[in-house]
Amino acid sequence: MSQAYFDHNATTPLDDAVLAAMMPYLQDRFGNPSSRHGFGRGARQAVEEAREKVAATVGAHPSQVIFVSGGTEANNLAIRGMAAVLPVSQIVHSGIEHPSVAKPCRDLQQQGWKPRTVAVDRDGRCDMNDLAQSLRESTGLVSVMLANNETGVIQDVAAVAQSARAAGAWVHTDAVQALGKIEVDFASLGVHAMSLSGHKIYGPKGVGALVMDKRVELLPQISGGGHEKGLRAGTENVPAIVGFGVACELAVNRMLQDAERIGALRTEVERGVAALGGVVFGGAAPRLVNTSYFAFPGVEGETLLMALDRAGFAVASGSACSSGSTEPSAVLLAMGVAAELAKGAVRVSLGRANTRQQVQEFIAVLQVELGRLRSMLSVELV
Amino acid sequence: MSQAYFDHNATTPLDDAVLAAMMPYLQDRFGNPSSRHGFGRGARQAVEEAREKVAATVGAHPSQVIFVSGGTEANNLAIRGMAAVLPVSQIVHSGIEHPSVAKPCRDLQQQGWKPRTVAVDRDGRCDMNDLAQSLRESTGLVSVMLANNETGVIQDVAAVAQSARAAGAWVHTDAVQALGKIEVDFASLGVHAMSLSGHKIYGPKGVGALVMDKRVELLPQISGGGHEKGLRAGTENVPAIVGFGVACELAVNRMLQDAERIGALRTEVERGVAALGGVVFGGAAPRLVNTSYFAFPGVEGETLLMALDRAGFAVASGSACSSGSTEPSAVLLAMGVAAELAKGAVRVSLGRANTRQQVQEFIAVLQVELGRLRSMLSVELV
Ligand SMILES: Cc1ncc(COP(=O)(O)O)c(C=O)c1O
Ligand SMILES: Cc1ncc(COP(=O)(O)O)c(C=O)c1O
Repeated sequence: MSQAYFDHNATTPLDDAVLAAMMPYLQDRFGNPSSRHGFGRGARQAVEEAREKVAATVGAHPSQVIFVSGGTEANNLAIRGMAAVLPVSQIVHSGIEHPSVAKPCRDLQQQGWKPRTVAVDRDGRCDMNDLAQSLRESTGLVSVMLANNETGVIQDVAAVAQSARAAGAWVHTDAVQALGKIEVDFASLGVHAMSLSGHKIYGPKGVGALVMDKRVELLPQISGGGHEKGLRAGTENVPAIVGFGVACELAVNRMLQDAERIGALRTEVERGVAALGGVVFGGAAPRLVNTSYFAFPGVEGETLLMALDRAGFAVASGSACSSGSTEPSAVLLAMGVAAELAKGAVRVSLGRANTRQQVQEFIAVLQVELGRLRSMLSVELV
Repeated sequence: MSQAYFDHNATTPLDDAVLAAMMPYLQDRFGNPSSRHGFGRGARQAVEEAREKVAATVGAHPSQVIFVSGGTEANNLAIRGMAAVLPVSQIVHSGIEHPSVAKPCRDLQQQGWKPRTVAVDRDGRCDMNDLAQSLRESTGLVSVMLANNETGVIQDVAAVAQSARAAGAWVHTDAVQALGKIEVDFASLGVHAMSLSGHKIYGPKGVGALVMDKRVELLPQISGGGHEKGLRAGTENVPAIVGFGVACELAVNRMLQDAERIGALRTEVERGVAALGGVVFGGAAPRLVNTSYFAFPGVEGETLLMALDRAGFAVASGSACSSGSTEPSAVLLAMGVAAELAKGAVRVSLGRANTRQQVQEFIAVLQVELGRLRSMLSVELV
């Protein structure tokens, strides 16, 4: 049985064109970019061309792009690296940040930093009044994500950056989920640092970037050879960097057509979900068009995920990173969703290869599985 | 003109079998190991099988293997991560460590640590008396590499570990260059932590591992989702991890035959070098059989490298990581080599695909190029 993949916010398949671009660097062009001979120079050129592509995609200068191993490292480098050069004060982040932002912020407490969480509303949007309130206290760094991985809700990061800058703080945004799905322009967002990841945009795993405003500083978190202008040591993952560059280019070229087609599929998913008694989270907020996050009261998300998996549909319950646990989603709790309902959360995140037929089959299967689970549930409740 | 690649200590080509093993994970098996559906479970299984292969290669238990992005990150995680849980004291490392060990040690000064460098002798071997001397002062952590990337000189890490443990210190070894070239057994080395890298053993770039004694602790340096038992967050680079596992397996299977054949080629290289008036560094010490590091008095290494590159031979001058600079090799200076001679250093590091014919052509070309450079030199000197 072939599986329909509905979990593109967890990871995406490599685009064929991306893999094709990577292949020479997995074969004959295997040089180390630090080497001075022909093999090395070829690798160096490939890395710098990829840097130009990534930079162009987000309206930045190539010199602003630091290649790292992924979105998690980019977030850690931003938070830890900027905090290390700032006087200890308050660090502000939204209540729905990815663990790779929230955890380093919490960790900074050991160095005297005061983490403060900005509230979000019922639809998962940052409360700008609460942000303003937070910024009354001296703040070194603010981190608010551009689009949330669970709900897909898009934040007004430009407004966040404006408030934060007015208060003298540096601003970071995690744009890992936004890239390729909405326009991401570094300059117009007005942030000092922005995290990107390859494998969420049909590019390879093992690569990401931190885009930096050169007017702010950063203490490298992995030091050694002078790679990436001394900001991130380690032999460059050349094939992955090349693939990331091409994936960025494709993301730009395909964004509008992807968004339209995928958005229409999402509408069908949510029509079906609503008809089956589901509740959609963040539905009233601006969202990434590929993402639908919902629950059926009384039905456990994990159980539904497993039933759908057996029936040929790969979906997520909560974020992939924390799916090992049975805790309700922290994002939903921050949005004020009751823990009982939050435990029912299932995420469908669509992608380029998904079809209308898959979506229609999905809704049919969902109806069958919900019926079965609900009948088991009512038996248990007797 | 085809290039002969003589720079395997900088990086190696992917073995065909490694690439073949990676391909499914670059194509259909693209899941995120944290996902609970079939795509995710397949990826998880692949990661855990690779972990078993890496562990078996170095005589460790799979639970001791933490996957990271490369050797540089492994070294940083060991040094920074262990120092973060130890009381501040002295940190001891040899004078010939890779920058990804030496630099994090130096950086620890800002937190009050006292870095101390252990001397090496003329042949690049750690001075065990100086180590013993160093250990009279209270020491938290000792880091001595198993094989040096420039000279190939092998250290008696088991003896280092014994002294260090007797003094109550934790011990780390950078085994990045040793893996696949000599036997590397975690238990018999007696260290607490050991760094490995994929791309030095015909495996992929973008992956490495820190092997850890579970009786010591480590503060994660990249936090977020609970990946790698909470010790290293970030979506796993599944294809690279799979490739690393297979490369480890191949390294073990091929080590003896590789060593014999490649060792014979190295002997031929050094016979030629000696005949042409070259000086071999570390020649009296036990060395990796693939590595030859030499200089021709009066001839700049960088100039010779470029001449050899034009003539079809890819060699290194000093370590690849610092080849952007014209400083003489810190390793050679630590060995007491005069700066003038050190500036002449050229490294040949042979590998699986190299042939006797390549080596013979290399010596012929070396003779021609040396002749040319020396005649230019004597003109300049007029
Ligand atoms: C919003 C967000 N930030 C960061 C990350 C981490 O990126 P990576 O998987 O490349 O480590 C993810 C995905 O896991 C994400 O969804
Ligand atoms: C001895 C040694 N340690 C560490 C490293 C760093 O490993 P990586 O290139 O995987 O970052 C290298 C190679 O550059 C090395 O030769």
